[in-house]
Amino acid sequence: MSASAVEAAIETRRELVNAALDERLPIEDPERLYRASRHLLDAGGKRLRPALTLLVAEALVDGAASESYETVPTLDGERDIDVMAAAVSIETIQSFTLIHDDIMDADDLRRGVPSVHRAFDNETAILAGDTLYAKAFEFMLETGAPAERTVQALSELAQTCTRICEGQSLDVEFERRAGVTTDEYIHMVEQKTAVLYAAAARIPALLLGADQETADALGAYGLDVGRAFQIRDDVLDLTVPSERLGKQRGSDLVEGKRTAVTLHAREQGVDVEALVETDDPEAVTEAEIDAAVAVLEEAGSIEYARTLSRDLVERGKSHLDVLPENEARELLCGLAEYLVERGY
Amino acid sequence: MSASAVEAAIETRRELVNAALDERLPIEDPERLYRASRHLLDAGGKRLRPALTLLVAEALVDGAASESYETVPTLDGERDIDVMAAAVSIETIQSFTLIHDDIMDADDLRRGVPSVHRAFDNETAILAGDTLYAKAFEFMLETGAPAERTVQALSELAQTCTRICEGQSLDVEFERRAGVTTDEYIHMVEQKTAVLYAAAARIPALLLGADQETADALGAYGLDVGRAFQIRDDVLDLTVPSERLGKQRGSDLVEGKRTAVTLHAREQGVDVEALVETDDPEAVTEAEIDAAVAVLEEAGSIEYARTLSRDLVERGKSHLDVLPENEARELLCGLAEYLVERGY
Repeated sequence: MSASAVEAAIETRRELVNAALDERLPIEDPERLYRASRHLLDAGGKRLRPALTLLVAEALVDGAASESYETVPTLDGERDIDVMAAAVSIETIQSFTLIHDDIMDADDLRRGVPSVHRAFDNETAILAGDTLYAKAFEFMLETGAPAERTVQALSELAQTCTRICEGQSLDVEFERRAGVTTDEYIHMVEQKTAVLYAAAARIPALLLGADQETADALGAYGLDVGRAFQIRDDVLDLTVPSERLGKQRGSDLVEGKRTAVTLHAREQGVDVEALVETDDPEAVTEAEIDAAVAVLEEAGSIEYARTLSRDLVERGKSHLDVLPENEARELLCGLAEYLVERGY
Repeated sequence: MSASAVEAAIETRRELVNAALDERLPIEDPERLYRASRHLLDAGGKRLRPALTLLVAEALVDGAASESYETVPTLDGERDIDVMAAAVSIETIQSFTLIHDDIMDADDLRRGVPSVHRAFDNETAILAGDTLYAKAFEFMLETGAPAERTVQALSELAQTCTRICEGQSLDVEFERRAGVTTDEYIHMVEQKTAVLYAAAARIPALLLGADQETADALGAYGLDVGRAFQIRDDVLDLTVPSERLGKQRGSDLVEGKRTAVTLHAREQGVDVEALVETDDPEAVTEAEIDAAVAVLEEAGSIEYARTLSRDLVERGKSHLDVLPENEARELLCGLAEYLVERGY
């Protein structure tokens, strides 16, 4: 499937998810709280995780999903369920974690706009995240799936949230500790990022009544794709211009973050801390970032991370054999490739 | 029922809840995250909300609960469920909200120990709260109740969390806004505090299969008792010595918080802002607090809040008529009274 076909498919689903978010997460009282809760959702985002949820559902029912994904027949044919509610739940969790992560990482920009704690304040940002957290569970309870399957989906969602917190905790810890290994890093990425992709792919299978093997394979697909996505992000932070990134290029390097690229470079003997030395992150120039990137290219570290993410995507795609052969399955393959081939 | 009998009953359940918390929330990897998550739970707390959950279950099944509340027969007699898991879930939500509230309110002390963001740091405190949030949903999924009822309990829990966030948002907003009315304050207290008491009392009814009328009455009991508890807390902040409070006496006054007491005083023409004027909260003396309290006594504001909380408790108790007459029901009456009569 061509990259442009995949992009068009992502775009169509993005618009549907946005419409559903508008409907399900209106600005209510207290208005400031809900404006803060919607701030990042309104600022953009590709809605890749909910797109995964929708596409898995579509693939499982072999294209029988309604246009809005609000009436998708379960595999036993006994009822229609609202898969969009699950998709919106996943995106809502994602948005909550971004809001809290930005506070923890003191990141000022996200999606080209001030992060929530900058646009509002820390108190409101903490609460906006907490509100989305609760709303995500509310949405996941609104699919109309049989109670047993709703319980499975909620269990998956709750455990996923626990693991995301554990992953973020490791991420914070790694900033403070020397000698983090690439294995530790990959494990952290799995917990912090990949588990939500796994949940996004697994939960529609649970809700629609797929068998355990299918649900597990879809979870494995999500986990590989999610790992690949984060490792690819480590590369993009270095190679994509700031205006397309929506934040400063090289910010991971400036902030001294461990990434797949910098950990590999250290293993090659590169003095990573010396690449960008500054007391004032705002004063770092594009030329300094360029010079640092050249050193990382030279060490093979950028190519290493690119190859790693491509290998993960290949493995991820292999798990899709459990699905019937149809267009949605092709799109899931294409989406995995898109995640590592995208320019931003 | 005597106050000492109620205290003994609370104490017994407190120990059971603590044992269950130890078992269900061990210090795992990442250790720092889980130590932070347990920090306030280990520092104390009466476990009043989970005690409510356990006592409602015990009253509904007319004393047929097991000693540990882990095998409580449902009302249709079809299975035993683990009500302790629900009780621990409620306490875990409570602990998450305390951790995040302390960050937002910049409170340094809680239960006589440094708050989590002081003992650790803001990042860890945000994450510890987020972890407990997820764990609370995990625990609520572990009661073994029929799936339909588990879904009802989770729906109640998620909606309660949303309302707690809305209430906390109002609380933060009220700090910044002049002219807050007592009605607005009571509404805020309901959202921020009372809804968790309502959930604590309603959820065991849902899980055990009580009818809607019974569940609603128990929810109404919890809501009244929760409101009374918070309004009583407003009084205790002024009247109980710091060492028994576990935080500075009069801290609401020093921080300029709106409470049932100060809002009433303003309506009586008291210049509340002038009662304790300081740029350095740490420098406020006991004598200054005493003088402020004397003015509030004089205005009838402390008595007003005491009476309001007592009236709410009386109304709350009246909802317990839906329960069979037994010792646990007496204890629920006694617990409501204890909440407004306790000295700290």
